[in-house]
Amino acid sequence: MKTISTIGFDADDTLWESEIFFSEVEKKFAQLIESYGVEGDIGQELYATEKKNLAKFGYGVKSFTISMVESAHHLTRGDLRSADTMQMVQWGKDLLEHPVRLLPNVKEVLTSLQDTYFVLVITKGDPLHQLQKFEDSGLAHLVEGIEILQEKDSAAYRTVLEKIAVMPEHFLMVGNSVRSDILPVVEIGSHVVHIPHETTWQHETEYGETVHDRTYPVLESIAGLPDFLNSLDSSELA
Amino acid sequence: MKTISTIGFDADDTLWESEIFFSEVEKKFAQLIESYGVEGDIGQELYATEKKNLAKFGYGVKSFTISMVESAHHLTRGDLRSADTMQMVQWGKDLLEHPVRLLPNVKEVLTSLQDTYFVLVITKGDPLHQLQKFEDSGLAHLVEGIEILQEKDSAAYRTVLEKIAVMPEHFLMVGNSVRSDILPVVEIGSHVVHIPHETTWQHETEYGETVHDRTYPVLESIAGLPDFLNSLDSSELA
Repeated sequence: MKTISTIGFDADDTLWESEIFFSEVEKKFAQLIESYGVEGDIGQELYATEKKNLAKFGYGVKSFTISMVESAHHLTRGDLRSADTMQMVQWGKDLLEHPVRLLPNVKEVLTSLQDTYFVLVITKGDPLHQLQKFEDSGLAHLVEGIEILQEKDSAAYRTVLEKIAVMPEHFLMVGNSVRSDILPVVEIGSHVVHIPHETTWQHETEYGETVHDRTYPVLESIAGLPDFLNSLDSSELA
Repeated sequence: MKTISTIGFDADDTLWESEIFFSEVEKKFAQLIESYGVEGDIGQELYATEKKNLAKFGYGVKSFTISMVESAHHLTRGDLRSADTMQMVQWGKDLLEHPVRLLPNVKEVLTSLQDTYFVLVITKGDPLHQLQKFEDSGLAHLVEGIEILQEKDSAAYRTVLEKIAVMPEHFLMVGNSVRSDILPVVEIGSHVVHIPHETTWQHETEYGETVHDRTYPVLESIAGLPDFLNSLDSSELA
């Protein structure tokens, strides 16, 4: 008897690259601001602005773009040149347009799971951009659908599971973010697999101390997921 | 026998004021740009930028904010001052924070419908902002839920009706936008009521010529909706 019927996959930095593109822009942003003679940790200043704006702007490229402009204004003490502002807007547009770069083995693993499990993509952020990436990814025919949440907290996961009428104990979430993909899912009594990504947004790595009380399965790559799932099944059977 | 079981209400400028807040910012934007000695139709330049960015940025305040910055850069020929850029960011934040101002009779009409019809809010744009407004509106307990679409086209309406298992002929949409609330709904064979709003975004009033081939019911105010629905029922019975 199989316990897990339904698997949710985070999208950004679990199925496809995302943070790496933001990191590249952050580097260019820092260089640009340094050219004004600004010293200090420019990346941290930008992040502080992003974090301050999160509640109002939510996640995604447009929020990031506006936060860059705001942060640049303050960092340059009101000296930001119009052309440089426009450069940031252009970086935002570029971020929205970069081709989807799937992580290794994603297509193979989703293909191998599709007959056995009800598979969903569960992501957060800008719906327009996420839908576009989902479409461009070529993965749509391998999964049942995509859920785009505003915040990946335990209440949001509960709502998703209620909608598809799946009990928490039959659900497993796979993702790179301890904050968004692991902790809230453990909280509702579901299963998790953490697949760390070398480039993970700072916000996703900030969480309380409670995590130290728990352990959860970690895989180096999505390639190990089918074997992991089989081992769960075997242990159920044993 | 009642034909209509389900009513969808557009939100912005149907249930609550929206465009009026954007219009106020557009006026301030034009004044600011004029202070640079720029002549010509600044509003139309801004709108052209918004329209160009729609496919990439989608609807909503964040898109509008970025389009203001971009448009201002071009209109001032690269002379935009940093403080004025920041002013635009602040206008964007203000737009996200203005209190929800319900249109007259909205609460009474929704209250009167709730026992007879399955009532949904069907809107588009920035989900975070729309959800926030929905929550702040105090209308949530009067309707079954809110659907936030990326684009209100006939395919999107079809998907909503499939999700709630309602046949198009049993559905009626109420809204101020001919482009988004009327034409696509007529196209799928559902009913419509157009309630024009004196301030309607230009984009919503731009549509093809096909509209001239059709007529659809127009009400001056949402206050007339219950009587209109009763008259539909009577004509069915007659």
